[in-house]
Amino acid sequence: MSNSDCLFCKIVEGQIPANIVGRNDDALAFTDINPKAPTHILIIPIEHIDSITDVRPEHANVLSEMFRLANDLANLQGVSESGFRLVVNNGPDAGQTVDHLHLHLLAGRNMTWPPG
Amino acid sequence: MSNSDCLFCKIVEGQIPANIVGRNDDALAFTDINPKAPTHILIIPIEHIDSITDVRPEHANVLSEMFRLANDLANLQGVSESGFRLVVNNGPDAGQTVDHLHLHLLAGRNMTWPPG
Repeated sequence: MSNSDCLFCKIVEGQIPANIVGRNDDALAFTDINPKAPTHILIIPIEHIDSITDVRPEHANVLSEMFRLANDLANLQGVSESGFRLVVNNGPDAGQTVDHLHLHLLAGRNMTWPPG
Repeated sequence: MSNSDCLFCKIVEGQIPANIVGRNDDALAFTDINPKAPTHILIIPIEHIDSITDVRPEHANVLSEMFRLANDLANLQGVSESGFRLVVNNGPDAGQTVDHLHLHLLAGRNMTWPPG
């Protein structure tokens, strides 16, 4: 299921270009257009899910495949050992800007604390 | 399976006190001892998993239950609408300090970008 008004659904469907760096049956990964680290990739479910609050038990496999893709990409980018941070923003206080669930993968530099 | 040297396994087993705020069959949640936001909770799998890179497809349900607990807690804390940020650190660059997978739930204030 996709949402015709959704930017990320349009990327999934190839209607909007993106620098796609990985995919599996349930998830797609592309680079963030405004990167905040040497490696900054977004991992999204191919199925439209608005946000993490809309994840249901039947999405367990989708969630798992999103994290598997993140791990695979961390390996490919050679940052699995040096480290990486995964971030999910939900709602206005966290600055969620696209209403299609996405996991930020940031790596390639020392990440500070707190995380924003 | 637990790891006898692991701080978070000791919290799961009640050997070390923590301010436990939620649990389900697969996940446990307690407040961060060094909070970085009005709401700052750690959600961990009850089973010992070193880090996100050690998550396998057979952990799909555990991962899903961790996020379900995070969502439930966001509702309980009244931050589901205002927003929250979820963070997983892996390895030295991200500042992972305990080698037991944990999800940070931060909320109750405006989160800045980049996330550290």
